[in-house]
Amino acid sequence: MKDVSVGICGLGTVGGGTFNVLTRNAALIAGRAGCNIRIARVASRRGRDDLDLGGVPFSTDIFDVVNDPSVDVVVELIGGYDVARELVLAAIANGKHVVTANKALIAVHGNEIFEAAENAGVVVAYEAGVAGGIPVIKAVREGMAANRIDWIAGIINGTGNYILTEMRAGREFSDVLKEAQALGYAEADPTFDVEGIDAAHKLTILAASGFGVPLQFDKAYTEGIAGITPYDIAHAELLGYRIKHLGIARRREDGIELRVHPTLVPQSHLIAQVDGVLNAVLVDGDAVGQTMYYGPGAGAEATASAVIADIVDVARLVASGGSPRVPYLGFRPEAMADLGVLPMEDVQSAYYLRIQAFDHPGVLAKIASVLSEHGINIESIMQKESEFRDGRIPVIILTHTVLERQMNLAIEALESLSEIDGKVVRIRAENFN
Amino acid sequence: MKDVSVGICGLGTVGGGTFNVLTRNAALIAGRAGCNIRIARVASRRGRDDLDLGGVPFSTDIFDVVNDPSVDVVVELIGGYDVARELVLAAIANGKHVVTANKALIAVHGNEIFEAAENAGVVVAYEAGVAGGIPVIKAVREGMAANRIDWIAGIINGTGNYILTEMRAGREFSDVLKEAQALGYAEADPTFDVEGIDAAHKLTILAASGFGVPLQFDKAYTEGIAGITPYDIAHAELLGYRIKHLGIARRREDGIELRVHPTLVPQSHLIAQVDGVLNAVLVDGDAVGQTMYYGPGAGAEATASAVIADIVDVARLVASGGSPRVPYLGFRPEAMADLGVLPMEDVQSAYYLRIQAFDHPGVLAKIASVLSEHGINIESIMQKESEFRDGRIPVIILTHTVLERQMNLAIEALESLSEIDGKVVRIRAENFN
Repeated sequence: MKDVSVGICGLGTVGGGTFNVLTRNAALIAGRAGCNIRIARVASRRGRDDLDLGGVPFSTDIFDVVNDPSVDVVVELIGGYDVARELVLAAIANGKHVVTANKALIAVHGNEIFEAAENAGVVVAYEAGVAGGIPVIKAVREGMAANRIDWIAGIINGTGNYILTEMRAGREFSDVLKEAQALGYAEADPTFDVEGIDAAHKLTILAASGFGVPLQFDKAYTEGIAGITPYDIAHAELLGYRIKHLGIARRREDGIELRVHPTLVPQSHLIAQVDGVLNAVLVDGDAVGQTMYYGPGAGAEATASAVIADIVDVARLVASGGSPRVPYLGFRPEAMADLGVLPMEDVQSAYYLRIQAFDHPGVLAKIASVLSEHGINIESIMQKESEFRDGRIPVIILTHTVLERQMNLAIEALESLSEIDGKVVRIRAENFN
Repeated sequence: MKDVSVGICGLGTVGGGTFNVLTRNAALIAGRAGCNIRIARVASRRGRDDLDLGGVPFSTDIFDVVNDPSVDVVVELIGGYDVARELVLAAIANGKHVVTANKALIAVHGNEIFEAAENAGVVVAYEAGVAGGIPVIKAVREGMAANRIDWIAGIINGTGNYILTEMRAGREFSDVLKEAQALGYAEADPTFDVEGIDAAHKLTILAASGFGVPLQFDKAYTEGIAGITPYDIAHAELLGYRIKHLGIARRREDGIELRVHPTLVPQSHLIAQVDGVLNAVLVDGDAVGQTMYYGPGAGAEATASAVIADIVDVARLVASGGSPRVPYLGFRPEAMADLGVLPMEDVQSAYYLRIQAFDHPGVLAKIASVLSEHGINIESIMQKESEFRDGRIPVIILTHTVLERQMNLAIEALESLSEIDGKVVRIRAENFN
C-alpha cells in the first residue's frame, strides 16, 4: 500500500488530537483511504511533554514542515492570521496540499489562498474550520450539489449556545459567562465567542461554499449575546420561541444576507432543541428542502475527526495521482456568483420588540398605529402587568417579516413617543419557512 | 466544458424528480461538477404525459440505456430486486458507472454487485437508498473516515415515524395507518414500512458502510409497530421517554447488532424530537462522538437531490479520468471485517416492561425478585391503579441494560407466576451512552 506523508504544524488541542487519532486509528484509516497516512514531521513553537510522538521528527520551526520534501500534505493547526497565511501560501508554493482547521484564516484570507491553490493545482481543505466535528462543508459542497441553496442557519459557536442554554434557568449573562470560563468553555477574553466574531468567520465560509460567492467576512453583520436578559428569554418562551445565537446566510437576487445575532426560533423547530456546547447547521436547498447537521463543534478529537476526513480525501487524491476534485468554494471559479453582502438595512426579518410603556390609556393603540404606519404587521402581542409597580408596563410584540430599514424607522418613532420610556429592545426572529 | 452522459431508468416519483432537478438546475450543477451532465436517454416501461422530456430519447426498454454506448452513468430508479439486479450487473459489464436509489437491491444483492463493480473498475453509488435526501452515506463513509464507528441508530422510515407521532395524541395504530394511506404517506400494502423491512434494508447498508462488514440483510432482526398502543406511548412519556421505530446497528468485538424495533428513547435526546415523516440518523464515532443527520427521507426532489449528488461525484471522476475513490462499503475490500450479525439473544438492551398483575399483597415483591434472580436491575418502576377496576393493576418497569437472553428467561418466569395475567409487554429502550 502506498504511503502519503503529512506534516502537522501546531501541537495545541487540535494538533494533539489529530496526532493521537491518526496514530490510534492508523490501520482503520488506511483501510478506508487505500493508503497509509504517515506522520512525517511535527512542528510546534512549544513541545508537549504529555504527547508521545513515537519517534516522529519534531521541530520548533513550523516552516521545517513546509520545506520537508517528503511531506505531501501540510496540516495547519497553529491558528491566527499572519503566520498561518504565510505558512499556507509557502506550502502551496512548494506544491503541497493543505488541510486547516483555521476558520479565521479562511474567512479573511481565503480568496487569496484559493486563487494561489488553484494556480498550483493543490487542495486546500477546511472542514474542521466550521462546526468542528460535523461534516457540514462536505454536506454543503458535495451532498447538496443538486440544489440551489437558498439559506443556511446555524448554531456555530458552542460557548454562546452554552451560555444561552444556562440562562433559560433565569441566570444572568455575566454570571453564566464566569462559570463557562471556569469550566474551560469560554476563553479568558471571550470577545470572539460572545460577540459573534467566531460565528461570523464560520458563517462567511458556509455562505461562500454554499452559494458560490467570494468570502466577504469584512461585510458580515455581528451582534453578540451580552445584551440578552433572562427576562427576554422567558418572554420569548411564553410566545413559543427560544433565543439562539444564530449565523444566518440567505441568497437573494440582489445579494446575500450575512449576519450573526441573537434570534428567536420556534420551540417546535429541531434547532431550538440543540442545547449546551453543541452545534447544528440547517441547510435549505430547492430540491431537498431542509436538512440539519448536528454534533460537537469543538474539542480535541472531534475537531481532529474533521481534520483527518480532509486528510483522507487528499490522501486518496495523492495516491491515485488525479487532479483536485471538489472546487474550493463548491463552484468552479468561473461559475461563482458576483453577489455582494447586503447592508443590514436591506435584510428581511421578523422581530421581537419589548417596549416600556407608561401605564396611560391609549398607549397600546399608539404603539400599534406607529407600527402600522411603517407597514409592520403584528403576529402577536403581550401586555404584562408591571412587576415593578413603577407605573411602566412592558409591551411585548412579535412582528411579521419586514425590511430592517422599516423597523429602524418604526423604533425611532416609537422611542420618540412620550408614552414610551427609554430604548426599545429588539431581537430578530426566524420561522424557517 | 466536458459532457458526462447519464441514462435514467425508471420514470416514477424519483425518476421524474431526478429528470426535473437535473434540467432545472443544469447550469448550477455544471458549475459545481466542472462538467455538463447531459441526460442522454430515458427509459421506462410506461411514459409520463406530465413530464416534458424536451427531446431526450425515450425507450420503453430499460436495457436500451445500458446498451447505449454514449451513456457514461446508468441511473437505476426502477426499484425491486430481480430486474434491477440484472440491469445493474449488465451496466457494470458494459463498463458503466451506476447510481441507484434502490435500498432493497443493495441490501440484498450488494455484495455481488460491489464485487462485480470492483472488478470492472466502476462506481456503484447508493446515497439515495438510505434516508432519502440526507447525505448520510457520504457522512458515514467520508466525513467519519477518522473514526471507529461504534454504533448507528436512525429513524429511517418516514411512514412509521408519522404513525408513531400521530399516536402520541392517543390514537390507535390502525386508525392512523388508514389516515396515512389516505394522505399517500403509506402504501396500500404497508408491510414494508410498518413491519420494519424497509428500515432493515437501510440499516443493513448503514451498518455495512459504517463498520466495513458485508451486507447481511437476511440476518437483520425486524419488529414492526403494529403492536404499539397509545397506552404504552403515554406511559413511556410519563417515564421521560418517547417511542420511536429505530434501526440500531452496534459493532461489538464478536459481531454486529442489526435490529429494527420500537424503542424508547429519552425525550431529552434530539432524536426524540424528530417527528412526522422526517428521518434522522445518529452516528457515534470514537473520535467525534455523536453526530446527527436530519431531513426528508422520501419525496421526488428530496430523493433526487441524493441521486444527483452521486451523479456529480461520478461525473467528476469521469471528467478527470481517475479511478474510483471511495470504497463501496467505506473500506477497501481487503480491509473489511468478517463480523457476522449477532443473534437477537446476544443483543444488549434496556427494556420497558408492562405487566398485568392481580391486585394481591406481595405481587410487586415477587416481580422484583424474579427480575433480580435473572440479574436484571430496575431503573424505575410505576404501579398504576387499575383504570378498569377489574382487580388487575398494570406494573410498568424500566430496566438497566441486560442481555436479551436473560430478559427472555425473566419474562418466561414472570408469565408463569399465578399473580400475573397474560403476556408481558416488552419494548426495548436506548439511552445512547
